[in-house]
Amino acid sequence: MTIHPQALPLDQVQVLAGFWHDRMTVNREQTLPAVYDKLKSTGRLDCWRRDVADEDLHRHIFWDSDTAKWIEAAGYALVGRRDAALERQIDEVVGWMVDAQGDDGYLNSYFLMARPEARWTNLRDNHELYCAGHLMEAAIAYHQATGKRTLLDALTRYADHIGATFGTGPGQKRGYCGHPEIELALVRLAEATGTSRYLDLASYFVDERGRSPNYYDLEAEARGENPRDFWARTYRYCQSHQPVREQTVATGHSVRAAYLYSAMVDLARRTRDDGLADACRALWQDLTTRQMYVIGGMGPSDTHEGFTFAYDLPNETAYGETCSAIALAYFAQRMFELDGQGATIDVLERAFYNNIIAGVSAEGRHFFQCNPLTAYPYYSPYVRWNGIIADRHYRRVDWIDCACCPTNLVRLVASVNGYLYAATADTVYVNLFASSRARLRVGGAAVTLEQLTNYPWEGAVHLEVRASDPVAFTLAVRVPGWCRAFKLTVNGAAVDAVLVDGYARLTRRWTPGDVIDLDLDMPIERMRAHPEIRQAAGQIALQRGPVVYAVEEIDNGPRLANLVLPASARLTAGRDPALLGGLGVLTGEALRIEPTAWPGGIYQPETQLKTAARTQPLKAIPYAFWANREPGEMRVWLRDA
Amino acid sequence: MTIHPQALPLDQVQVLAGFWHDRMTVNREQTLPAVYDKLKSTGRLDCWRRDVADEDLHRHIFWDSDTAKWIEAAGYALVGRRDAALERQIDEVVGWMVDAQGDDGYLNSYFLMARPEARWTNLRDNHELYCAGHLMEAAIAYHQATGKRTLLDALTRYADHIGATFGTGPGQKRGYCGHPEIELALVRLAEATGTSRYLDLASYFVDERGRSPNYYDLEAEARGENPRDFWARTYRYCQSHQPVREQTVATGHSVRAAYLYSAMVDLARRTRDDGLADACRALWQDLTTRQMYVIGGMGPSDTHEGFTFAYDLPNETAYGETCSAIALAYFAQRMFELDGQGATIDVLERAFYNNIIAGVSAEGRHFFQCNPLTAYPYYSPYVRWNGIIADRHYRRVDWIDCACCPTNLVRLVASVNGYLYAATADTVYVNLFASSRARLRVGGAAVTLEQLTNYPWEGAVHLEVRASDPVAFTLAVRVPGWCRAFKLTVNGAAVDAVLVDGYARLTRRWTPGDVIDLDLDMPIERMRAHPEIRQAAGQIALQRGPVVYAVEEIDNGPRLANLVLPASARLTAGRDPALLGGLGVLTGEALRIEPTAWPGGIYQPETQLKTAARTQPLKAIPYAFWANREPGEMRVWLRDA
Repeated sequence: MTIHPQALPLDQVQVLAGFWHDRMTVNREQTLPAVYDKLKSTGRLDCWRRDVADEDLHRHIFWDSDTAKWIEAAGYALVGRRDAALERQIDEVVGWMVDAQGDDGYLNSYFLMARPEARWTNLRDNHELYCAGHLMEAAIAYHQATGKRTLLDALTRYADHIGATFGTGPGQKRGYCGHPEIELALVRLAEATGTSRYLDLASYFVDERGRSPNYYDLEAEARGENPRDFWARTYRYCQSHQPVREQTVATGHSVRAAYLYSAMVDLARRTRDDGLADACRALWQDLTTRQMYVIGGMGPSDTHEGFTFAYDLPNETAYGETCSAIALAYFAQRMFELDGQGATIDVLERAFYNNIIAGVSAEGRHFFQCNPLTAYPYYSPYVRWNGIIADRHYRRVDWIDCACCPTNLVRLVASVNGYLYAATADTVYVNLFASSRARLRVGGAAVTLEQLTNYPWEGAVHLEVRASDPVAFTLAVRVPGWCRAFKLTVNGAAVDAVLVDGYARLTRRWTPGDVIDLDLDMPIERMRAHPEIRQAAGQIALQRGPVVYAVEEIDNGPRLANLVLPASARLTAGRDPALLGGLGVLTGEALRIEPTAWPGGIYQPETQLKTAARTQPLKAIPYAFWANREPGEMRVWLRDA
Repeated sequence: MTIHPQALPLDQVQVLAGFWHDRMTVNREQTLPAVYDKLKSTGRLDCWRRDVADEDLHRHIFWDSDTAKWIEAAGYALVGRRDAALERQIDEVVGWMVDAQGDDGYLNSYFLMARPEARWTNLRDNHELYCAGHLMEAAIAYHQATGKRTLLDALTRYADHIGATFGTGPGQKRGYCGHPEIELALVRLAEATGTSRYLDLASYFVDERGRSPNYYDLEAEARGENPRDFWARTYRYCQSHQPVREQTVATGHSVRAAYLYSAMVDLARRTRDDGLADACRALWQDLTTRQMYVIGGMGPSDTHEGFTFAYDLPNETAYGETCSAIALAYFAQRMFELDGQGATIDVLERAFYNNIIAGVSAEGRHFFQCNPLTAYPYYSPYVRWNGIIADRHYRRVDWIDCACCPTNLVRLVASVNGYLYAATADTVYVNLFASSRARLRVGGAAVTLEQLTNYPWEGAVHLEVRASDPVAFTLAVRVPGWCRAFKLTVNGAAVDAVLVDGYARLTRRWTPGDVIDLDLDMPIERMRAHPEIRQAAGQIALQRGPVVYAVEEIDNGPRLANLVLPASARLTAGRDPALLGGLGVLTGEALRIEPTAWPGGIYQPETQLKTAARTQPLKAIPYAFWANREPGEMRVWLRDA
């Protein structure tokens, strides 16, 4: 029987310094309050109030999810760091929520107070179960951090109401949500409360999805609508075009997709459902080897915020929603917990260090929804040609009306410590590298693992085992897929570690004070894309360790399309202490290939031009930190010779 | 005083053989009846009928323009070639139109019969004056070909009604159409009827445009709407954001733009208005040196079918509407008539041989609305990710709901003979090269000019002067801008012709039977785009003569992005007799640069790959004829070394 590794929970892991410590600090001190201010000023909190006249309030079908994700983020941030002021903000809202909750347990600010008659009439579009799922995740996080049960109790009542409403029994609706989310939330609720019926409900939602006759057809007809009038034209949009076990290609809205797939993995692991697990593996394979950006994002098309087809990864018009990269990380983490493959953490790490962190400014209060790989200050698919630039494509904004990305970011970054380590009864997995401390029981004993590293700028990782007595267990240290040479020592003595599933497994009786040193070779790599990816043909992306680099106009001048980085170009990795707190940078030389003069007009025969290849300095910075200075061009894929 | 050249009218020029003869024949025999069939089957003709119950009819605000353009096309085709069956089709519709016309002269099928209360309430959006303009052009063409006055009389009544309704006088509306068209039509009506008040009305429409307060604001308020709710968000969309004389940048919907600019040139020339002429020159310069595709198209953005900003010319997502290229040709022709510069005919010729002819299939019954410069059979901005491909981006369709392009194509191709020659009292301009015969009065005598050529596949042009007696005039033979070396002989003797404004001017007393031979050097050119055009960086386009070439998957294999054409690549021009009736083609060798094997995954470090540059045959065909065989990839811009 497979023993699945399980991530160590937040209260067992502290991030102490370095990249993630900095990001988590900004997240807690800047992003979390910024999100609260916006929730408040936009009416997302007051919409719960029954003591304010309705006409003074706005409500929206998925505002509950924004508030929920902020509470969830706060819950993570409060682990081991209680904060009375923050808790007062939350408790006030929770009070309103509980006051508003229906006698039957129903809990949704919009459908309780704005359109009660429409409750459960349009699962396809209305996000009701989606909002319920986010409220469940919020309730669990807040309860786990504070022990406060009010919200959790409200959500179990709501979950019970949902369980009574939906299912295959007589009188039940055979529906499921257009936007998956409740499925993974119910799995968490089952574990948080030890209530297996929530797991069953999650299984029901997952397996009912996409059956014939399609529920969305039936409910549309019940509303007197023609199902063919569905704006998205296809149930692929919400992964409901066929039963999930038959799906092999990642399709539709990419956040919905990866939330669904995450729940599928959760269930496959917990119910030991091999068929479901195989569907997950097929979808994972398709997504990560045919539809993933080099920055760890996905979903190129803005028309439906989602997937198009294999190897279609446009750069300048990329949608690449921040939420998508986060959802990809959720999926990756669960695939790791299913199969224990380090390669899935490679994907998670690619998303974490690149697309996800790009979603928030270095100062923590501005956000990208879209994450293009080529940007022009006056161009984006969102440009309005009227001179008003919808600038969210090349400049972060302090809020987004559809606020899924800022709220997803704040909860993800607040919980990064939950992704560092995992364990079984006899094995500790070191998945991410960050100066940190983990406390856990392994090999039957309490063990503390200390990690010290300057990752991702340097490849050296120092680990120390602390325990009261010697203890036998396996330390499985991930060797990232990008790394092709590494050294491993235990107490200074080289170890010839065999890589198993992407991990250097060290099985021994550990003595307190044992030190493990991993030295990952971290050269600058010129990455190439699969030859079917036409948008990267003749181009390379610079990557070092897990970090993908970008060039910006402010460092390299305009017309970045005219820069060429031949194979002979020497590049050096270093730190720029003046750059946004000290980022790793790559410097060297590139060629700028342009005509020495332009004779006029817009097209010219080559024979009429003299073209020069001039050497110029090149500076590339981590993609995640682009657009933190003056707006300008940006490029990830650079022309090679 | 400048003497402006004027194009020779259709009845003075016959195209006798070759490229345009073939296209015009297909247009007359296939496209014209295909358009009629669609007008009929979609209800665009019956919508005029009062003898059919309203509930059995559909009507649409701009259907009149489609029918009008078909009548106009038929009018051109009927010049010197009457056709009783075709005329019966037209006369039937004209009968319905006249029956429907209001007592006040108003003539619009939609606003007469579907929404009479909305007449003239929304000039911004409703296309009423636009439809009126197209009906005027139809009436003029049909009258000129057949002498039949019914429609022309109806349209002069309508023009008089419009003249009474709009203007600066007391009780008149100070409006103008959201979609320019009536302005240039009124100029034609003024000339066709010798009625100067139509010219004044055109001037009014042009100069009223964009004044403050903006008429569209006022009429929106009168409808009880907020002008800010205009879907397009800006009056740049319809070139009404400022007075036209102040406009220097081509902006907004590109067909609207070029129709407006065309009328501005018409008026500038006829009213000797230097200020207006300078505005036209500035707009021409901006459009053709900063916003024009190498295929002679314009308007990259599909969101508003129009311009974005200087040097923004995306290939795969190009909108590049067929109508836009036609409108560009209209503008070009008028700029020639204003300033007599051959360079404006270079632009016209680029549009004619490339973007415009690409709009229709070789067999004449399928149409492109969009004209991308890179195409993927499973990708376009119009792809629906649901598996249903909205394939109009890579495959022509037999009709387009918004039928502006098929109807514009059929009228343009039917009138190509009107673009070949122009004249003043003492000069004949040979603008386009095609085997043809022109009859005109020049130098006070009747002269016939015969032209024989295999252009655009060969650069040799043979001209012969016929007259009853010797006659003195200047023969101004255009030497295209793409040509950098040419030979000119008169009666076999070399002539050292001086180029003036792009023309070899031969002034002499011509003797009947004099022959002129022009031999244009026509090498294959590797064209480069302006260095600000990022979408063409590191790429070349193949052009020979006026023809831009494209490579297709059917000839060159898939993954065209991986083909490289180094400067050393030898290419040969030839004819392929088996290809769509015998097209010019370019053949040679290219490099296909791809990894010899792909190790798996989606991104790989260059060090892990072995890349091979394999030589393969290359075949490029004229862009205008792409997508006439099996669907597949297509590319105009090819990577160079």
